[in-house]
Amino acid sequence: MAYLSDIEIANQVTMKPIKEVAESLNLTEDDYELYGKFKAKLDAHELEKMKDRQDGKLILVTAITPTPAGEGKTTTSVGLADGLTKIGKKAMLALREPSLGPVFGVKGGAAGGGYAQVVPMEDINLHFTGDFHAIGAANNLLAALLDNHIHHGNTLQIDSRRITWKRVVDMNDRQLRYIVDGLQGKVNGVPREDGYDITVASEIMAILCLANNIIDLKEKLRKIIVAYNFAGDPVTAGDLKAEGALTALLKEAIHPNLVQTLEHTPALIHGGPFANIAHGCNSVLATKMSMKYADYTITEAGFGADLGAEKFIDIKCRLADIKPDAVVLVATIRALKMHGGVPKNALGDENVKAVIDGFPNLEKHLINIQEVYGLPVVVAINKFPTDTQAELTAVEEACKKRNVEVVLSEVWEKGGEGAISLAEKVIELAEQPNSFSYVYDLEDSIEEKLTKIVQKVYGGKGVEITKAARREMQDLERLGFGNYPICMAKTQYSFSDDATLIGAPKDFTVTIRNMKISAGAGFIVALTGTVMTMPGLPKSPAAERIDVDEQGVISGLF
Amino acid sequence: MAYLSDIEIANQVTMKPIKEVAESLNLTEDDYELYGKFKAKLDAHELEKMKDRQDGKLILVTAITPTPAGEGKTTTSVGLADGLTKIGKKAMLALREPSLGPVFGVKGGAAGGGYAQVVPMEDINLHFTGDFHAIGAANNLLAALLDNHIHHGNTLQIDSRRITWKRVVDMNDRQLRYIVDGLQGKVNGVPREDGYDITVASEIMAILCLANNIIDLKEKLRKIIVAYNFAGDPVTAGDLKAEGALTALLKEAIHPNLVQTLEHTPALIHGGPFANIAHGCNSVLATKMSMKYADYTITEAGFGADLGAEKFIDIKCRLADIKPDAVVLVATIRALKMHGGVPKNALGDENVKAVIDGFPNLEKHLINIQEVYGLPVVVAINKFPTDTQAELTAVEEACKKRNVEVVLSEVWEKGGEGAISLAEKVIELAEQPNSFSYVYDLEDSIEEKLTKIVQKVYGGKGVEITKAARREMQDLERLGFGNYPICMAKTQYSFSDDATLIGAPKDFTVTIRNMKISAGAGFIVALTGTVMTMPGLPKSPAAERIDVDEQGVISGLF
Repeated sequence: MAYLSDIEIANQVTMKPIKEVAESLNLTEDDYELYGKFKAKLDAHELEKMKDRQDGKLILVTAITPTPAGEGKTTTSVGLADGLTKIGKKAMLALREPSLGPVFGVKGGAAGGGYAQVVPMEDINLHFTGDFHAIGAANNLLAALLDNHIHHGNTLQIDSRRITWKRVVDMNDRQLRYIVDGLQGKVNGVPREDGYDITVASEIMAILCLANNIIDLKEKLRKIIVAYNFAGDPVTAGDLKAEGALTALLKEAIHPNLVQTLEHTPALIHGGPFANIAHGCNSVLATKMSMKYADYTITEAGFGADLGAEKFIDIKCRLADIKPDAVVLVATIRALKMHGGVPKNALGDENVKAVIDGFPNLEKHLINIQEVYGLPVVVAINKFPTDTQAELTAVEEACKKRNVEVVLSEVWEKGGEGAISLAEKVIELAEQPNSFSYVYDLEDSIEEKLTKIVQKVYGGKGVEITKAARREMQDLERLGFGNYPICMAKTQYSFSDDATLIGAPKDFTVTIRNMKISAGAGFIVALTGTVMTMPGLPKSPAAERIDVDEQGVISGLF
Repeated sequence: MAYLSDIEIANQVTMKPIKEVAESLNLTEDDYELYGKFKAKLDAHELEKMKDRQDGKLILVTAITPTPAGEGKTTTSVGLADGLTKIGKKAMLALREPSLGPVFGVKGGAAGGGYAQVVPMEDINLHFTGDFHAIGAANNLLAALLDNHIHHGNTLQIDSRRITWKRVVDMNDRQLRYIVDGLQGKVNGVPREDGYDITVASEIMAILCLANNIIDLKEKLRKIIVAYNFAGDPVTAGDLKAEGALTALLKEAIHPNLVQTLEHTPALIHGGPFANIAHGCNSVLATKMSMKYADYTITEAGFGADLGAEKFIDIKCRLADIKPDAVVLVATIRALKMHGGVPKNALGDENVKAVIDGFPNLEKHLINIQEVYGLPVVVAINKFPTDTQAELTAVEEACKKRNVEVVLSEVWEKGGEGAISLAEKVIELAEQPNSFSYVYDLEDSIEEKLTKIVQKVYGGKGVEITKAARREMQDLERLGFGNYPICMAKTQYSFSDDATLIGAPKDFTVTIRNMKISAGAGFIVALTGTVMTMPGLPKSPAAERIDVDEQGVISGLF
């Protein structure tokens, strides 16, 4: 049987008017604004009024150390929410918004897959409700105000060699990575080295996702460090009197976006920060609102459970004062075999030994979730046609030793129907008491925090901090940022900082090469290597194959 | 009595749900998409189905040669539409969308003023329905595809010194006017000189505004010339296979935006190209759809009637195959006095002689409208508190000689009530037969077209074409663009190309310094000087005074 493409499946389903989806949450027309018939923005200002309302359960979907193709967290999340809906529960998704960049680069959207998708997918993948453009505009207004300040006399004594604020565009455009601007004389600015990031890498994206309300948003924007002056002190957005105008540009973007799954489960898709230099989770407001409206909120965090889940817990949950009730750890048999040493071209062949050899990766994530994060967990195997019963059994047996159940997730093929066992297990786990805890305390020194993450979560010996990073660390402590949480920017392909160390490596040291402060978002970024914050397009970009017909219907997008 | 600010007046009025405004046009829910409760996008694909429906009357609002403050075309347009509504006519506005740039630079939105405004004004002035961001994304995707092509081997042999396509941002950011990008080695692009324009200066803005439908849009996008190759031949967006993806990015932006005036008259606000390097009119689709839904469509064109009206007629009407039925020429007593030689600080004093001395400017515009464009015209005096009866009488007497009536427009103070006489006059004029005609034929040579514009419309002796411009002209003829219409980029403060020549100068020559082709939009830009396509922020930008409260309500915007 020939498989249908994601867009073909999506086009076969008749969406419900989003009004009806909103009504299923007992929302009235005053609680949201329509953006066409199938998108709406929920009023984030309502959250304050609901603060005494009981929260529903929060379920985090995370994954083992992934292969480059990803393990299917979004697809599993969507299917799980549909599965919960199918067995009569009031479930809702809280997911990230996709960036425009990849849409035109390599084929692929970010709205689930197969029969577990969020729709309308073209809209979600193109502009959506304009949030990313608003973030880009706010980011670029701040940059314009900064350079304008220097142009008009530089009263703040900004050292133009130490400007940390870049401009952004929601596009893969390597040509903009390193530029010199302000050229051609006195009336055209002040020449300096500069560069662009993709919009999702903007600190404003992280801020929007961590803001608890619009005043908190404005306060976080005010604290953004855009540069250092000649005395070495930070210059903030507040010094440029920018926070009010930036907030004005974000006053609609702050409201979470309501869409639906193919099976009409409500989904809030809101915000999408990078998962390396930022925390990689959807907005706090979307998660919190979902917890008010639904009995089960399914959310996800970027990359594997060493990175995404750790940041979800230590940054997002801590800053938002929320906590998850259960965790779904997504794995594929293919990825386990990869961690067992099988090369990419042989991942389709049955290989029980390799599954067993790769299991320590999964096991280390289970230990982290159970013992470090203190949360109940179920393993969801995202099923591929090449998986064999013997391979699945091997995983089940191994997990049994940790008292963890393994459930097959067949949501790509069957939608919510393929996640009913998973949904039932999640309901059971979420009722269990748990001993949720952070990996480190904010009062720990920066070095202690880094060490705890590496030792407790990654399973390494400790951290090595380069001279440059140590100097930066001391600067951050001097400036009063010592008690901020850490955002680790590390490869997602290994527990270590070496992408080739698959499985569950031991005895390694993680080298911290640089430390930067995201003073507005409220975390210290610890960089273990260079992070690409502006992707490029491939030789034959997907853009070349996209078309639109006379009724505005898009083809070639996925 | 203290005057209220525009935003205070706007906030006093209760808007109708846009659904009700749409219903007043007999639109059903299938004809539009809501963007919140007070904005909607009309389905542009419906236009094809309505092609046999009778068109309503089209009224062009234009102005005499303006003072730097502007004569009040938008305010008069809004008031006139409200006046028509007040006397029971089915009227609708078709206006331009404002740019974000000026909002943060100098105080001031672009949605009318006083009691003649279009609302919701904060939305219209910030992001609106995302059209400008979509245009920016399309513009920048094309730039990324171009540089990506060069990076991956430059099969098309693009001469990077002859790239004509710039990136854009909807922001006043002088720092980006002249840049060098693609720095830092082989993996980060190819170094070259580059620069940014503000989004409204993008050729894609002009294209969106001249497209008759989405297929026409795609075809125009395909024809954009982005660079020349080493052989000197044009390289187009089509050569980069970009037109499908660009159209996908614009598939929502193509639909006109429906809002309302303070008096609930429907208004389509759609597109906003520069009025110098482009044609300065709202979209063809908005104008055409309005003509199908309303009996009277009020539209405007940038700058004075020598520029805006000429381009409206020779570019927009010609490419869209529409024609206006009557013209409103907006003037102020203050501007007439300025043309009569009065300095700015004395414009508030009564000076009948100066009004008479400045009249030749108004008269020349009347001659153009009546004899060159062949259309019936009424003069609307946009009333200021300092105007005296004697000054008004002087204008009336002078206009009588050309059989033109003068009507006082008090819409700023009174809304539609202040435009009832104007509305009645417009209805009368629109019933008159007219001898509408273009200023030149497309078959005329480029030099003939330029000469006709200067001699017939500007009242000059002729054109002088510089050596550089002549070479460019010959190139354009060689490349087959000889029969494109002309878009004159000239100062708006004089009939001539010298901003200091006020009144109705004679015996002057207009110097054409450069000619460029907007092959997608479909016109030749003739430049008489340098045009600023990326504004800068002032020393104390308006952004510093903008704020947002805890309910998301903006202050300091206007």
